[in-house]
Amino acid sequence: MKRPISFEIEKRGAGLARAGVLKTPHGEIKTPAFIAVATKASLKGIAPSQFKELGVQGIISNTYHLFLSPGEKLIEAAGGIHKFMNFDGPIMTDSGGFQVFSLGVGFGKKVSKFASNSDILSPDREVEPRGTPVLFDEDFATSHGKLAIVDNEGVSFTSHIDGSFHRFTPERSIEIQHALGADIIYAFDECTSPTADYAYQKEAMDRTHAWAKRSLAAHRQDPAKDASQGIYGITQGGRFEDLRVESARALADMDFDGYGIGGSFSKEDILGILEKVNAELPEGKPRHLLGIGEPEDIFIGAAAGIDTFDCVVPTRKGRTGCFYTHTGQIIIRNAEFKEDFSPIDPTCDCFVCKGFTRAYIHHLFRTNEMLGPVLGSAHNIYFLTKLTADIREAILNENLEAFRDEFLGAYQPA
Amino acid sequence: MKRPISFEIEKRGAGLARAGVLKTPHGEIKTPAFIAVATKASLKGIAPSQFKELGVQGIISNTYHLFLSPGEKLIEAAGGIHKFMNFDGPIMTDSGGFQVFSLGVGFGKKVSKFASNSDILSPDREVEPRGTPVLFDEDFATSHGKLAIVDNEGVSFTSHIDGSFHRFTPERSIEIQHALGADIIYAFDECTSPTADYAYQKEAMDRTHAWAKRSLAAHRQDPAKDASQGIYGITQGGRFEDLRVESARALADMDFDGYGIGGSFSKEDILGILEKVNAELPEGKPRHLLGIGEPEDIFIGAAAGIDTFDCVVPTRKGRTGCFYTHTGQIIIRNAEFKEDFSPIDPTCDCFVCKGFTRAYIHHLFRTNEMLGPVLGSAHNIYFLTKLTADIREAILNENLEAFRDEFLGAYQPA
Repeated sequence: MKRPISFEIEKRGAGLARAGVLKTPHGEIKTPAFIAVATKASLKGIAPSQFKELGVQGIISNTYHLFLSPGEKLIEAAGGIHKFMNFDGPIMTDSGGFQVFSLGVGFGKKVSKFASNSDILSPDREVEPRGTPVLFDEDFATSHGKLAIVDNEGVSFTSHIDGSFHRFTPERSIEIQHALGADIIYAFDECTSPTADYAYQKEAMDRTHAWAKRSLAAHRQDPAKDASQGIYGITQGGRFEDLRVESARALADMDFDGYGIGGSFSKEDILGILEKVNAELPEGKPRHLLGIGEPEDIFIGAAAGIDTFDCVVPTRKGRTGCFYTHTGQIIIRNAEFKEDFSPIDPTCDCFVCKGFTRAYIHHLFRTNEMLGPVLGSAHNIYFLTKLTADIREAILNENLEAFRDEFLGAYQPA
Repeated sequence: MKRPISFEIEKRGAGLARAGVLKTPHGEIKTPAFIAVATKASLKGIAPSQFKELGVQGIISNTYHLFLSPGEKLIEAAGGIHKFMNFDGPIMTDSGGFQVFSLGVGFGKKVSKFASNSDILSPDREVEPRGTPVLFDEDFATSHGKLAIVDNEGVSFTSHIDGSFHRFTPERSIEIQHALGADIIYAFDECTSPTADYAYQKEAMDRTHAWAKRSLAAHRQDPAKDASQGIYGITQGGRFEDLRVESARALADMDFDGYGIGGSFSKEDILGILEKVNAELPEGKPRHLLGIGEPEDIFIGAAAGIDTFDCVVPTRKGRTGCFYTHTGQIIIRNAEFKEDFSPIDPTCDCFVCKGFTRAYIHHLFRTNEMLGPVLGSAHNIYFLTKLTADIREAILNENLEAFRDEFLGAYQPA
């Protein structure tokens, strides 16, 4: 049976680098490509009608966030995520694993609603009715913070919005992603804390592999969804090279349509061993590096054989006034830009750089004008999509290393 | 000498209504027209490249706000306000009179930096060096609140941003507006509080007339600016019909290029006597109703012979989630819109209504996505520019009253 997504390698470069085309039911992505993050089905301040102008070929949204609000049933009723947000191009949804765990760690200062394990298991407790019943395995239960508790079956967590109680299992994550209707969905995985020791990291990895199998089975058993949505498995392993390689091998043995390389919370954990991970993955399938994608990272990833990237940093920085330029990043509120009538980046062709000066954008941020964050989001997205497109061109032209040296010779990472 | 702005009446309608064309150095405005408010040289969340699509023919910015930040010298150094904000169409700047007084009243709860009149006059006090020297006339001085004190020469005030001390006179307001470089500038005027009694209202009106003469003289004495910028006088008179008529007559006797009808703080003060005011103004010159322009107001104004309108309400409402529709206004956050897959207004042709559902925009506002306020601002601006354009068409087609009855029959004001 023809799969809903396919990948063709057009050209191989030095190392594991490759340029290719990822085909989805909603169009092609020329790779390497930067996938813009639209966590809640919205790219910060930017309407989908502007995506093409900003080089955005595809976006990635988030299962956890969309499950909490507005709910996957509502998006399904809207006709799926493409219609809901009015973007007819390729869309991915991350499985929610990262968010469940990062919220657990990130929200550690908040008072937990969990008084004890017995409290969770109490029959009086109101459990999200549409959730899978809680199958709490005390032996394996590990708290990743105040808002999430993992067991071998899944994760129980409280919403960061209203404290309501929910449960994700691999099957539930796939069910939600089926309702959302993205072109590419992800297996449910367990992200680990960077402070986790080897023993826990291995345990979590094994659990991720079991969940990957269950996610894949849950997807394949729905023929209509299996025919219209591709599924990626996610490799884990934290900062341990042997686990990273073991995880890649385990996932490679499962018949996913593509692979995500999952991070823990520090990109140093993964960038250094990307080549070894990718060497284990099937060469003909697309690889997505989850959540990592500042300029210097994209060079490392592309050289190591990554096809697509996503990262919240460009829009987060942009809307708070930190702009990428070919020489590094500038904080536009700084006094030095008050009377600077040059563009953000004179080498950039985006509408922000073609239309506005640093002085004007400085003024917008200083006076809290909404257009400032909008322009910051737009410019930084363009900067990353253009850089990644230039890396693709360099691979096609067999000069990736020269382009990297030229770019990184001028660019000073933050 | 040919004036930089000119006005042609194309068609007269019932009452004083007329459709015309206002020509400026940066293009034409077909009237009646809604002028979008870009107080700080930015239309909330909307880039000038989108103005045409949203029906925005021209904008009005503010002398007080731009004087405080980024300063008129910086905008002059940028090449003027058109280049600074990258909008090549018609721009007006209000004189700052309204803002100085409204901030005085509006900021009444803030502790004044003025200990006493003698404190203001103290030679030790640091006065904005570029300001006109303080000529404080104790007999006429009246405090309009904590941040502004008026005398016959001008107004002394402290910045709402940083408490710095400044002074505007008619000459200074014109000097700033010359530096900003808008196509149409306004005479410096005194806005009064709605609680002001007849005696004070008359006194303020007489002062406004004296300031109008001084503003006009200050403008005409600079031949280059006089040749490139038109100047409007502002009529006042508060809620007293005889003063309104007297003010219109006094201004009509001065050779302004057009007229602004100034409000006090309540539109009820002025809408009812607009016809009498306009009957006194020269028929061949354009008239702008300052700061008033919700749908029902535009019908009243257009029928009374107003050519252009401006109002901050559409963008203020839009970015906080209140959307205009042909049947009234909706608060998009309300639960009733959670699963409403219809557009904001099915009769509207703007990109917001063509591209997004109420359910999606509800989701954007509920989850604090920046795109929500951007879409709100855009839709409401389009709604007002389109309504005003439709009123123009109705005047040209001699059916303004029928169109008004049809529109207001369906539309429920907030």
